[in-house]
Amino acid sequence: MEADPSMVADQSLRRFLDELASSAPTPGGGGAAAVMGAMGAALVSMVCRLTIGKKDYEAVEAPVRRMLDQAEAVRQRLTDMIAADVQAFDALMGAYKLPRSSDAEKQARTEAIQHALKQATDVPLDCASACAEVIELARQVAPIGNRGVISDAGVAALSAHAALRSAALAVYINVPSIKDADFVQSRRARLDSLLARCAADNEQAYETVVGRLG
Amino acid sequence: MEADPSMVADQSLRRFLDELASSAPTPGGGGAAAVMGAMGAALVSMVCRLTIGKKDYEAVEAPVRRMLDQAEAVRQRLTDMIAADVQAFDALMGAYKLPRSSDAEKQARTEAIQHALKQATDVPLDCASACAEVIELARQVAPIGNRGVISDAGVAALSAHAALRSAALAVYINVPSIKDADFVQSRRARLDSLLARCAADNEQAYETVVGRLG
Repeated sequence: MEADPSMVADQSLRRFLDELASSAPTPGGGGAAAVMGAMGAALVSMVCRLTIGKKDYEAVEAPVRRMLDQAEAVRQRLTDMIAADVQAFDALMGAYKLPRSSDAEKQARTEAIQHALKQATDVPLDCASACAEVIELARQVAPIGNRGVISDAGVAALSAHAALRSAALAVYINVPSIKDADFVQSRRARLDSLLARCAADNEQAYETVVGRLG
Repeated sequence: MEADPSMVADQSLRRFLDELASSAPTPGGGGAAAVMGAMGAALVSMVCRLTIGKKDYEAVEAPVRRMLDQAEAVRQRLTDMIAADVQAFDALMGAYKLPRSSDAEKQARTEAIQHALKQATDVPLDCASACAEVIELARQVAPIGNRGVISDAGVAALSAHAALRSAALAVYINVPSIKDADFVQSRRARLDSLLARCAADNEQAYETVVGRLG
């Protein structure tokens, strides 16, 4: 029995892991990426919340409050993407199953597949973009957040960076089948730019955290 | 109100994320690491399950069956660690709150803290070790698993590697406060060896996957 995709985030963690491990095609790597990204955003929020209102951190309270707002907004987007990934995959599978007995049917099916492939590319690309925001927030909070919980800023960056690279794999799967060369080129360019920027930002966040733990 | 730590994995994903983002100290980065590791193991299992029994993959069925058994065993261990991390943290906080009005109390408190710090180091180290197994399984399945879902082997490696580095941060937090030099040295050595080996294995799994997507 198929679960309602919009309810994926309302399953227990244990059941989500069971479904990830099952032979059902969804949830898969795309859903796992959205969860990792959302965990990263959640950990940025946690660091911000444990910095705001603390006497030793009054000087950074204003920027940290802004970071918290941004982290909570991006966490909401990433949580919604857990379901969006399942929906995009289901739509693609549905398009492949369309009838192809006549030329008209064949053409309609091809168009539906191309449309669904673009959707199945843009969902992980949105995920990658949201993860880049999380990494940037982790990098910003790492040097100024409450030192007592600063390792969580490092985990936030690591988790969001793994999510970004995972989302990239989902883009790579789909682009070879997409015939619209402009679409492919623009999406690849956006992805490459995100990957290049975030690899450095992630390491910077991690090193900052390690330096403050010592 | 505190939730029963052993029930963390039975919460909905949405609630887990809310608690991660909250100002409550647990679940935190350690729990997020265990979840990432368990997601990695689950994705290895999924790739194995979608390889076993497929006509084009008969030649690799025997090793892939063994990988599935190993992935499911390590997934169970990592799922249990989500709660173990919360328990270790709570035990440490409990030790810090012990009374210290007399010398006897002070000494008992110091011993309890040292014991709890060792526990709070060994839990993430076990997590790191389990994640190393997941990365090794992802590396093994990447060149032979069903190409149609092979990106999930890449996500498995990325997720388990982020989890391993996250668990390392949890070890780094605790060791500066531990007075038993032999304990610290042995744990640091084990962690450094895991980190060195797995960085290369993760990139190898990822590159193998990208090569098979092209």
